[in-house]
Amino acid sequence: MPATSSYPPKIPHPPAETLDLVTIMRTLGDPVRLQIVRLLGDGRPRVCNELSGALGIPPSTGSYHLRLLRMAGVTRTEAKGTERLITLRRDELDERFPGLVDVLIRG
Amino acid sequence: MPATSSYPPKIPHPPAETLDLVTIMRTLGDPVRLQIVRLLGDGRPRVCNELSGALGIPPSTGSYHLRLLRMAGVTRTEAKGTERLITLRRDELDERFPGLVDVLIRG
Repeated sequence: MPATSSYPPKIPHPPAETLDLVTIMRTLGDPVRLQIVRLLGDGRPRVCNELSGALGIPPSTGSYHLRLLRMAGVTRTEAKGTERLITLRRDELDERFPGLVDVLIRG
Repeated sequence: MPATSSYPPKIPHPPAETLDLVTIMRTLGDPVRLQIVRLLGDGRPRVCNELSGALGIPPSTGSYHLRLLRMAGVTRTEAKGTERLITLRRDELDERFPGLVDVLIRG
């Protein structure tokens, strides 16, 4: 097994310096995804099931939206044991696009 | 002719209180439209041809993007003689979504 492999497999995230405002705006131009960001705005990590339950959507649908948020660089998903904990990439977003998260959470 | 008609025909704009953050985010999740907002960020009114020229796009394409921005409540189009002058609805956006325009223009 090559030394670079890991288990569990690493969940991909775009680096902070590649985050793109257009991509983020397009990704958040959706009521479910904006609502997820607002739920995560309190800083508490959540699993997909909790977010989906709070929004009244099937976990499969929640998982789809969470993947888009992660790929846009808005959220971070970390494997912890059997769970995948989702958080907002707040510090990185605040540094790249000051004020954006505040607008989203307040709006 | 009914008393409610007018010439030139009134250009429709959504009232400030109906502006929706999801719609605005979705509309601005496009590189051309975000660029138009940045150009208008200096407060100077512009006509479609000037904006299109600055972006290197055909006026018909510019007109399409400007219509979407107007319908989302991001810009205002006012007929002045034969010209249609476009401005950012900055005060109304600042009041409804404080910080949003700053993020867009700075980002």
